[in-house]
Amino acid sequence: MKVDVSKPILDRNERLAAENRELFAEHDVFVLDVLASPGAGKTSTILATIAALRDRYSIAVIEGDIASSVDAEKIKAHGVPAVQINTGGACHLESDMIRRAVDTLDLGAIDLLIIENVGNLVCPTDFDLGEHAKVMILSVPEGHDKPYKYPNIFARAEAVILNKYDTLPVFDFDEEEFRSVVTSLNAAAPVFPISATKGNGVEAWAAWLTGRIEAMREGAA
Amino acid sequence: MKVDVSKPILDRNERLAAENRELFAEHDVFVLDVLASPGAGKTSTILATIAALRDRYSIAVIEGDIASSVDAEKIKAHGVPAVQINTGGACHLESDMIRRAVDTLDLGAIDLLIIENVGNLVCPTDFDLGEHAKVMILSVPEGHDKPYKYPNIFARAEAVILNKYDTLPVFDFDEEEFRSVVTSLNAAAPVFPISATKGNGVEAWAAWLTGRIEAMREGAA
Repeated sequence: MKVDVSKPILDRNERLAAENRELFAEHDVFVLDVLASPGAGKTSTILATIAALRDRYSIAVIEGDIASSVDAEKIKAHGVPAVQINTGGACHLESDMIRRAVDTLDLGAIDLLIIENVGNLVCPTDFDLGEHAKVMILSVPEGHDKPYKYPNIFARAEAVILNKYDTLPVFDFDEEEFRSVVTSLNAAAPVFPISATKGNGVEAWAAWLTGRIEAMREGAA
Repeated sequence: MKVDVSKPILDRNERLAAENRELFAEHDVFVLDVLASPGAGKTSTILATIAALRDRYSIAVIEGDIASSVDAEKIKAHGVPAVQINTGGACHLESDMIRRAVDTLDLGAIDLLIIENVGNLVCPTDFDLGEHAKVMILSVPEGHDKPYKYPNIFARAEAVILNKYDTLPVFDFDEEEFRSVVTSLNAAAPVFPISATKGNGVEAWAAWLTGRIEAMREGAA
Protein backbone atom coordinates (compact mmCIF):
# COMPACT_ATOMS: atom_id res chain seq x y z
CA MET A 1 0.00 0.00 0.00
CA LYS A 2 3.06 2.29 -0.05
CA VAL A 3 3.55 4.66 -2.94
CA ASP A 4 7.20 4.57 -3.92
CA VAL A 5 7.28 8.21 -4.96
CA SER A 6 7.06 9.34 -1.34
CA LYS A 7 10.78 8.90 -0.73
CA PRO A 8 12.14 11.63 -3.04
CA ILE A 9 9.40 14.00 -1.81
CA LEU A 10 10.38 13.30 1.79
CA ASP A 11 14.11 13.65 0.99
CA ARG A 12 13.56 17.06 -0.60
CA ASN A 13 11.44 18.07 2.38
CA GLU A 14 14.16 16.97 4.83
CA ARG A 15 16.71 19.15 3.06
CA LEU A 16 14.43 22.20 3.19
CA ALA A 17 13.53 21.41 6.83
CA ALA A 18 17.23 21.57 7.70
CA GLU A 19 17.42 25.01 6.04
CA ASN A 20 14.38 26.16 8.04
CA ARG A 21 15.98 24.88 11.22
CA GLU A 22 19.13 26.88 10.55
CA LEU A 23 17.09 30.01 9.90
CA PHE A 24 15.14 29.56 13.13
CA ALA A 25 18.38 28.96 15.09
CA GLU A 26 19.92 32.14 13.66
CA HIS A 27 17.05 34.17 15.10
CA ASP A 28 16.49 32.15 18.33
CA VAL A 29 12.92 31.38 17.31
CA PHE A 30 11.28 28.36 18.95
CA VAL A 31 8.96 26.64 16.48
CA LEU A 32 6.01 24.48 17.52
CA ASP A 33 4.08 22.33 15.00
CA VAL A 34 0.52 21.59 16.18
CA LEU A 35 -1.21 18.50 14.74
CA ALA A 36 -4.81 17.33 15.19
CA SER A 37 -7.99 16.21 13.46
CA PRO A 38 -10.31 18.80 11.99
CA GLY A 39 -12.31 20.36 14.80
CA ALA A 40 -10.15 19.13 17.70
CA GLY A 41 -9.57 22.75 18.71
CA LYS A 42 -6.18 23.64 17.23
CA THR A 43 -6.97 27.33 16.80
CA SER A 44 -8.64 27.60 20.22
CA THR A 45 -5.65 25.91 21.85
CA ILE A 46 -3.26 28.26 20.05
CA LEU A 47 -5.33 31.25 21.21
CA ALA A 48 -5.25 29.92 24.80
CA THR A 49 -1.47 29.42 24.50
CA ILE A 50 -1.07 32.97 23.22
CA ALA A 51 -3.14 34.30 26.14
CA ALA A 52 -0.92 32.38 28.60
CA LEU A 53 2.46 33.30 27.09
CA ARG A 54 2.12 36.62 25.27
CA ASP A 55 3.47 38.64 28.21
CA ARG A 56 6.62 36.52 28.20
CA TYR A 57 7.20 35.86 24.49
CA SER A 58 6.58 37.60 21.21
CA ILE A 59 4.44 35.14 19.22
CA ALA A 60 3.48 34.65 15.55
CA VAL A 61 1.34 31.98 13.92
CA ILE A 62 1.36 30.18 10.56
CA GLU A 63 -2.03 28.70 9.68
CA GLY A 64 -2.25 25.74 7.30
CA ASP A 65 -5.58 24.92 5.68
CA ILE A 66 -6.80 23.34 2.46
CA ALA A 67 -8.85 26.48 1.87
CA SER A 68 -10.09 29.68 3.60
CA SER A 69 -8.39 32.13 5.93
CA VAL A 70 -10.87 31.73 8.79
CA ASP A 71 -8.17 30.70 11.28
CA ALA A 72 -5.61 33.39 10.42
CA GLU A 73 -8.35 36.02 10.82
CA LYS A 74 -9.17 34.65 14.30
CA ILE A 75 -5.50 34.93 15.35
CA LYS A 76 -5.05 38.42 13.87
CA ALA A 77 -8.17 39.58 15.74
CA HIS A 78 -6.07 39.08 18.90
CA GLY A 79 -3.30 41.35 17.61
CA VAL A 80 -0.92 38.50 16.79
CA PRO A 81 0.80 38.28 13.38
CA ALA A 82 -0.60 35.36 11.36
CA VAL A 83 0.16 34.04 7.88
CA GLN A 84 -2.35 31.79 6.14
CA ILE A 85 -1.11 28.98 3.88
CA ASN A 86 -3.73 27.40 1.61
CA THR A 87 -2.48 24.03 0.41
CA GLY A 88 -5.11 23.65 -2.31
CA GLY A 89 -5.67 19.96 -1.88
CA ALA A 90 -2.58 18.85 0.05
CA CYS A 91 -3.30 17.26 3.43
CA HIS A 92 -0.18 18.51 5.23
CA LEU A 93 2.31 21.36 5.29
CA GLU A 94 5.79 20.96 3.81
CA SER A 95 8.99 22.82 4.53
CA ASP A 96 8.92 24.90 1.36
CA MET A 97 5.48 26.28 2.26
CA ILE A 98 6.78 27.17 5.74
CA ARG A 99 9.79 28.93 4.24
CA ARG A 100 7.62 31.09 1.98
CA ALA A 101 5.36 31.98 4.91
CA VAL A 102 8.34 32.71 7.19
CA ASP A 103 9.79 35.07 4.57
CA THR A 104 6.78 37.37 5.13
CA LEU A 105 7.48 37.55 8.90
CA ASP A 106 10.09 39.53 10.86
CA LEU A 107 11.85 36.55 12.52
CA GLY A 108 14.11 38.87 14.54
CA ALA A 109 11.03 40.10 16.41
CA ILE A 110 9.60 36.63 17.16
CA ASP A 111 10.37 34.31 20.10
CA LEU A 112 7.75 31.65 19.47
CA LEU A 113 6.36 30.63 16.09
CA ILE A 114 3.34 28.34 16.25
CA ILE A 115 2.43 26.37 13.12
CA GLU A 116 -1.14 25.07 12.90
CA ASN A 117 -0.91 22.16 10.49
CA VAL A 118 -3.76 20.98 8.24
CA GLY A 119 -6.44 19.09 10.20
CA ASN A 120 -5.39 15.49 9.73
CA LEU A 121 -4.16 12.67 11.99
CA VAL A 122 -2.14 10.98 9.26
CA CYS A 123 -0.35 13.01 6.61
CA PRO A 124 1.42 15.72 8.67
CA THR A 125 3.11 13.18 10.96
CA ASP A 126 6.07 12.33 8.73
CA PHE A 127 6.84 15.84 7.46
CA ASP A 128 9.62 17.63 9.30
CA LEU A 129 9.12 21.40 8.94
CA GLY A 130 12.28 22.35 10.81
CA GLU A 131 10.26 22.73 14.03
CA HIS A 132 11.60 22.13 17.54
CA ALA A 133 8.61 20.09 18.67
CA LYS A 134 5.51 18.49 17.22
CA VAL A 135 2.61 18.32 19.66
CA MET A 136 -0.82 16.89 19.03
CA ILE A 137 -4.31 17.63 20.26
CA LEU A 138 -7.01 15.01 20.67
CA SER A 139 -10.44 16.20 21.77
CA VAL A 140 -12.65 14.18 24.10
CA PRO A 141 -15.54 13.84 21.58
CA GLU A 142 -13.20 12.01 19.16
CA GLY A 143 -13.03 9.04 21.53
CA HIS A 144 -10.38 7.26 23.57
CA ASP A 145 -9.74 4.64 20.87
CA LYS A 146 -7.87 7.02 18.55
CA PRO A 147 -4.32 5.98 19.59
CA TYR A 148 -5.12 2.43 18.40
CA LYS A 149 -6.10 3.71 14.97
CA TYR A 150 -3.56 6.50 14.46
CA PRO A 151 -0.53 5.21 16.40
CA ASN A 152 2.13 7.06 14.39
CA ILE A 153 1.07 10.56 15.39
CA PHE A 154 0.83 9.58 19.08
CA ALA A 155 4.29 7.99 18.87
CA ARG A 156 5.77 11.09 17.23
CA ALA A 157 4.25 13.90 19.33
CA GLU A 158 6.34 15.28 22.22
CA ALA A 159 3.20 16.14 24.16
CA VAL A 160 -0.48 15.25 23.87
CA ILE A 161 -3.14 17.85 24.67
CA LEU A 162 -6.54 16.38 25.56
CA ASN A 163 -8.91 19.19 24.64
CA LYS A 164 -12.63 19.77 25.37
CA TYR A 165 -11.93 18.06 28.69
CA ASP A 166 -14.97 19.81 30.17
CA THR A 167 -17.20 17.63 27.95
CA LEU A 168 -15.97 14.38 29.56
CA PRO A 169 -19.33 13.84 31.33
CA VAL A 170 -21.15 14.02 27.96
CA PHE A 171 -19.05 11.41 26.13
CA ASP A 172 -18.13 7.78 26.68
CA PHE A 173 -14.39 8.55 26.95
CA ASP A 174 -12.25 6.21 29.05
CA GLU A 175 -9.41 8.48 30.20
CA GLU A 176 -7.53 5.68 31.95
CA GLU A 177 -7.48 3.51 28.83
CA PHE A 178 -6.52 6.53 26.70
CA ARG A 179 -3.56 7.39 28.93
CA SER A 180 -2.44 3.79 29.09
CA VAL A 181 -2.40 3.39 25.27
CA VAL A 182 -0.66 6.74 24.80
CA THR A 183 2.01 5.67 27.30
CA SER A 184 2.50 2.33 25.52
CA LEU A 185 3.12 4.22 22.24
CA ASN A 186 5.13 7.07 23.71
CA ALA A 187 6.27 6.71 27.30
CA ALA A 188 7.86 10.18 27.41
CA ALA A 189 4.89 12.24 26.22
CA PRO A 190 2.95 14.09 28.91
CA VAL A 191 -0.86 14.34 28.51
CA PHE A 192 -2.38 17.75 29.29
CA PRO A 193 -6.17 17.82 29.79
CA ILE A 194 -7.41 21.30 28.89
CA SER A 195 -10.55 23.17 27.91
CA ALA A 196 -9.08 25.66 25.49
CA THR A 197 -12.13 27.90 25.11
CA LYS A 198 -12.57 28.13 28.91
CA GLY A 199 -8.86 28.32 29.73
CA ASN A 200 -8.90 25.35 32.15
CA GLY A 201 -5.68 23.34 32.38
CA VAL A 202 -3.76 25.69 30.11
CA GLU A 203 -1.19 26.63 32.82
CA ALA A 204 0.36 23.13 32.93
CA TRP A 205 0.62 22.97 29.14
CA ALA A 206 2.03 26.51 28.95
CA ALA A 207 4.57 25.66 31.67
CA TRP A 208 5.75 22.62 29.69
CA LEU A 209 6.10 24.71 26.54
CA THR A 210 7.98 27.43 28.45
CA GLY A 211 10.36 24.74 29.70
CA ARG A 212 11.02 23.57 26.14
CA ILE A 213 11.58 27.15 24.90
CA GLU A 214 13.97 27.98 27.74
CA ALA A 215 15.89 24.72 27.21
CA MET A 216 16.41 25.72 23.56
CA ARG A 217 17.56 29.19 24.58
CA GLU A 218 20.00 27.86 27.14
CA GLY A 219 21.34 25.44 24.53
CA ALA A 220 21.78 28.34 22.12
CA ALA A 221 23.41 30.64 24.69
CA MET B 1 1.65 22.23 -4.18
CA LYS B 2 0.39 19.40 -6.38
CA VAL B 3 2.50 16.29 -6.75
CA ASP B 4 2.48 15.32 -10.40
CA VAL B 5 2.66 11.62 -9.64
CA SER B 6 -0.94 11.66 -8.38
CA LYS B 7 -2.35 11.44 -11.92
CA PRO B 8 -1.11 7.95 -12.85
CA ILE B 9 -2.13 6.69 -9.39
CA LEU B 10 -5.61 8.16 -9.85
CA ASP B 11 -5.83 6.78 -13.40
CA ARG B 12 -4.99 3.27 -12.21
CA ASN B 13 -7.49 3.66 -9.40
CA GLU B 14 -10.22 4.77 -11.84
CA ARG B 15 -9.65 1.66 -13.94
CA LEU B 16 -9.91 -0.63 -10.92
CA ALA B 17 -12.95 1.33 -9.65
CA ALA B 18 -14.71 0.59 -12.95
CA GLU B 19 -13.96 -3.10 -12.45
CA ASN B 20 -15.36 -2.96 -8.91
CA ARG B 21 -18.47 -1.19 -10.21
CA GLU B 22 -19.05 -3.98 -12.74
CA LEU B 23 -18.64 -6.62 -10.06
CA PHE B 24 -21.12 -4.84 -7.76
CA ALA B 25 -23.63 -4.48 -10.63
CA GLU B 26 -23.37 -8.18 -11.46
CA HIS B 27 -24.48 -9.03 -7.93
CA ASP B 28 -26.93 -6.11 -7.40
CA VAL B 29 -24.92 -4.89 -4.41
CA PHE B 30 -25.39 -1.24 -3.42
CA VAL B 31 -22.08 0.19 -2.15
CA LEU B 32 -21.86 3.16 0.21
CA ASP B 33 -18.54 4.90 0.99
CA VAL B 34 -18.60 6.70 4.35
CA LEU B 35 -16.12 9.57 4.86
CA ALA B 36 -15.42 11.59 8.00
CA SER B 37 -12.78 12.87 10.41
CA PRO B 38 -11.39 10.55 13.05
CA GLY B 39 -13.92 10.35 15.87
CA ALA B 40 -16.91 11.82 14.00
CA GLY B 41 -18.80 8.59 14.65
CA LYS B 42 -18.44 6.59 11.43
CA THR B 43 -18.65 3.20 13.13
CA SER B 44 -21.54 4.27 15.38
CA THR B 45 -23.43 5.65 12.38
CA ILE B 46 -22.83 2.42 10.45
CA LEU B 47 -24.10 0.41 13.45
CA ALA B 48 -27.21 2.63 13.65
CA THR B 49 -27.74 2.19 9.90
CA ILE B 50 -27.43 -1.58 10.28
CA ALA B 51 -29.99 -1.55 13.12
CA ALA B 52 -32.40 0.45 10.93
CA LEU B 53 -32.02 -1.59 7.73
CA ARG B 54 -30.96 -5.13 8.65
CA ASP B 55 -34.51 -6.50 8.47
CA ARG B 56 -34.80 -5.22 4.92
CA TYR B 57 -31.29 -5.77 3.52
CA SER B 58 -28.45 -8.19 4.00
CA ILE B 59 -25.48 -5.98 4.97
CA ALA B 60 -21.69 -6.32 5.08
CA VAL B 61 -19.01 -3.80 6.06
CA ILE B 62 -15.45 -3.08 4.95
CA GLU B 63 -13.45 -1.18 7.58
CA GLY B 64 -10.50 0.98 6.54
CA ASP B 65 -7.98 2.02 9.16
CA ILE B 66 -4.29 2.85 9.30
CA ALA B 67 -3.93 0.21 12.02
CA SER B 68 -5.97 -2.01 14.38
CA SER B 69 -9.15 -4.02 13.88
CA VAL B 70 -11.16 -2.29 16.61
CA ASP B 71 -13.92 -1.24 14.20
CA ALA B 72 -14.34 -4.56 12.39
CA GLU B 73 -14.64 -6.28 15.79
CA LYS B 74 -17.40 -3.85 16.79
CA ILE B 75 -19.35 -4.64 13.60
CA LYS B 76 -18.86 -8.41 13.88
CA ALA B 77 -20.11 -8.28 17.48
CA HIS B 78 -23.50 -7.39 15.93
CA GLY B 79 -23.48 -10.49 13.73
CA VAL B 80 -22.65 -8.58 10.54
CA PRO B 81 -19.79 -9.73 8.25
CA ALA B 82 -16.89 -7.25 8.38
CA VAL B 83 -13.49 -7.16 6.68
CA GLN B 84 -10.73 -4.99 8.10
CA ILE B 85 -8.28 -3.28 5.76
CA ASN B 86 -5.15 -1.85 7.38
CA THR B 87 -3.54 0.67 5.06
CA GLY B 88 -0.23 0.86 6.94
CA GLY B 89 0.32 4.56 6.49
CA ALA B 90 -2.04 5.43 3.64
CA CYS B 91 -4.69 8.03 4.47
CA HIS B 92 -7.42 6.68 2.19
CA LEU B 93 -8.72 3.46 0.66
CA GLU B 94 -8.09 2.64 -3.00
CA SER B 95 -9.98 0.39 -5.40
CA ASP B 96 -7.45 -2.44 -5.31
CA MET B 97 -7.75 -2.69 -1.50
CA ILE B 98 -11.54 -2.84 -1.86
CA ARG B 99 -11.28 -5.57 -4.49
CA ARG B 100 -9.09 -7.72 -2.25
CA ALA B 101 -11.50 -7.24 0.68
CA VAL B 102 -14.54 -7.96 -1.53
CA ASP B 103 -12.96 -11.20 -2.71
CA THR B 104 -13.26 -12.52 0.87
CA LEU B 105 -17.04 -11.78 0.94
CA ASP B 106 -19.97 -13.68 -0.62
CA LEU B 107 -21.30 -10.84 -2.81
CA GLY B 108 -24.28 -12.91 -3.94
CA ALA B 109 -25.58 -12.87 -0.36
CA ILE B 110 -25.13 -9.09 0.16
CA ASP B 111 -27.58 -6.26 -0.69
CA LEU B 112 -25.75 -3.39 0.92
CA LEU B 113 -21.98 -3.07 1.34
CA ILE B 114 -20.88 -0.21 3.58
CA ILE B 115 -17.27 0.96 3.35
CA GLU B 116 -15.89 2.90 6.29
CA ASN B 117 -13.02 4.90 4.84
CA VAL B 118 -9.94 6.02 6.81
CA GLY B 119 -10.71 8.91 9.16
CA ASN B 120 -9.72 11.92 7.07
CA LEU B 121 -11.53 14.90 5.53
CA VAL B 122 -9.07 15.26 2.65
CA CYS B 123 -7.45 12.23 1.07
CA PRO B 124 -10.43 9.88 0.52
CA THR B 125 -12.43 12.52 -1.38
CA ASP B 126 -10.84 12.01 -4.80
CA PHE B 127 -10.63 8.22 -4.77
CA ASP B 128 -13.47 6.44 -6.57
CA LEU B 129 -13.84 2.95 -5.11
CA GLY B 130 -16.60 1.88 -7.49
CA GLU B 131 -19.23 2.86 -4.90
CA HIS B 132 -22.74 4.12 -5.72
CA ALA B 133 -22.60 7.00 -3.26
CA LYS B 134 -20.12 8.78 -1.03
CA VAL B 135 -21.66 10.28 2.09
CA MET B 136 -19.92 12.21 4.82
CA ILE B 137 -20.38 12.63 8.54
CA LEU B 138 -19.53 15.80 10.42
CA SER B 139 -20.00 15.76 14.18
CA VAL B 140 -21.21 18.80 16.11
CA PRO B 141 -18.06 19.04 18.30
CA GLU B 142 -15.92 19.55 15.16
CA GLY B 143 -17.54 22.95 14.59
CA HIS B 144 -19.72 24.59 11.96
CA ASP B 145 -16.74 26.13 10.13
CA LYS B 146 -15.51 22.85 8.64
CA PRO B 147 -17.14 23.32 5.17
CA TYR B 148 -15.03 26.48 4.73
CA LYS B 149 -11.85 24.53 5.40
CA TYR B 150 -12.63 21.22 3.68
CA PRO B 151 -14.88 22.30 0.81
CA ASN B 152 -14.07 19.40 -1.54
CA ILE B 153 -15.54 16.68 0.61
CA PHE B 154 -18.72 18.66 1.22
CA ALA B 155 -19.02 19.31 -2.52
CA ARG B 156 -18.52 15.64 -3.34
CA ALA B 157 -20.77 13.94 -0.75
CA GLU B 158 -24.30 13.00 -1.83
CA ALA B 159 -25.57 13.44 1.72
CA VAL B 160 -24.20 15.02 4.90
CA ILE B 161 -24.89 13.40 8.26
CA LEU B 162 -24.57 15.79 11.22
CA ASN B 163 -23.76 13.43 14.07
CA LYS B 164 -23.66 13.92 17.87
CA TYR B 165 -26.59 16.29 17.32
CA ASP B 166 -27.64 15.75 20.94
CA THR B 167 -24.51 17.65 22.05
CA LEU B 168 -25.58 20.86 20.28
CA PRO B 169 -26.32 22.63 23.62
CA VAL B 170 -22.74 21.92 24.79
CA PHE B 171 -20.94 23.37 21.74
CA ASP B 172 -20.87 26.69 19.97
CA PHE B 173 -22.20 25.23 16.69
CA ASP B 174 -24.19 27.52 14.39
CA GLU B 175 -26.46 25.09 12.54
CA GLU B 176 -27.95 27.76 10.32
CA GLU B 177 -24.53 28.90 9.11
CA PHE B 178 -23.44 25.29 8.66
CA ARG B 179 -26.45 24.43 6.50
CA SER B 180 -26.06 27.60 4.47
CA VAL B 181 -22.39 26.89 3.63
CA VAL B 182 -23.12 23.24 2.84
CA THR B 183 -25.89 24.34 0.48
CA SER B 184 -23.60 26.84 -1.23
CA LEU B 185 -21.07 24.04 -1.88
CA ASN B 186 -23.59 21.34 -2.72
CA ALA B 187 -27.18 22.42 -3.26
CA ALA B 188 -28.44 18.86 -3.78
CA ALA B 189 -27.04 17.27 -0.60
CA PRO B 190 -29.53 16.73 2.24
CA VAL B 191 -28.28 17.26 5.82
CA PHE B 192 -29.41 14.62 8.35
CA PRO B 193 -28.96 15.54 12.03
CA ILE B 194 -28.59 12.31 14.00
CA SER B 195 -27.33 10.99 17.33
CA ALA B 196 -25.96 7.66 16.19
CA THR B 197 -25.36 6.14 19.62
CA LYS B 198 -28.88 7.09 20.78
CA GLY B 199 -30.63 6.33 17.48
CA ASN B 200 -32.23 9.79 17.14
CA GLY B 201 -32.78 11.01 13.58
CA VAL B 202 -31.64 7.75 12.01
CA GLU B 203 -35.02 7.06 10.33
CA ALA B 204 -34.72 10.00 7.92
CA TRP B 205 -31.18 9.04 6.96
CA ALA B 206 -32.13 5.35 6.57
CA ALA B 207 -35.13 6.34 4.42
CA TRP B 208 -32.87 8.37 2.11
CA LEU B 209 -30.45 5.44 1.80
CA THR B 210 -33.32 3.03 1.13
CA GLY B 211 -34.49 5.36 -1.65
CA ARG B 212 -31.03 5.28 -3.22
CA ILE B 213 -30.79 1.49 -2.97
CA GLU B 214 -34.25 0.96 -4.48
CA ALA B 215 -33.47 3.42 -7.30
CA MET B 216 -30.40 1.36 -8.17
CA ARG B 217 -32.40 -1.86 -8.10
CA GLU B 218 -35.13 -0.43 -10.32
CA GLY B 219 -32.46 0.79 -12.71
CA ALA B 220 -30.95 -2.69 -12.75
CA ALA B 221 -34.29 -4.46 -13.17
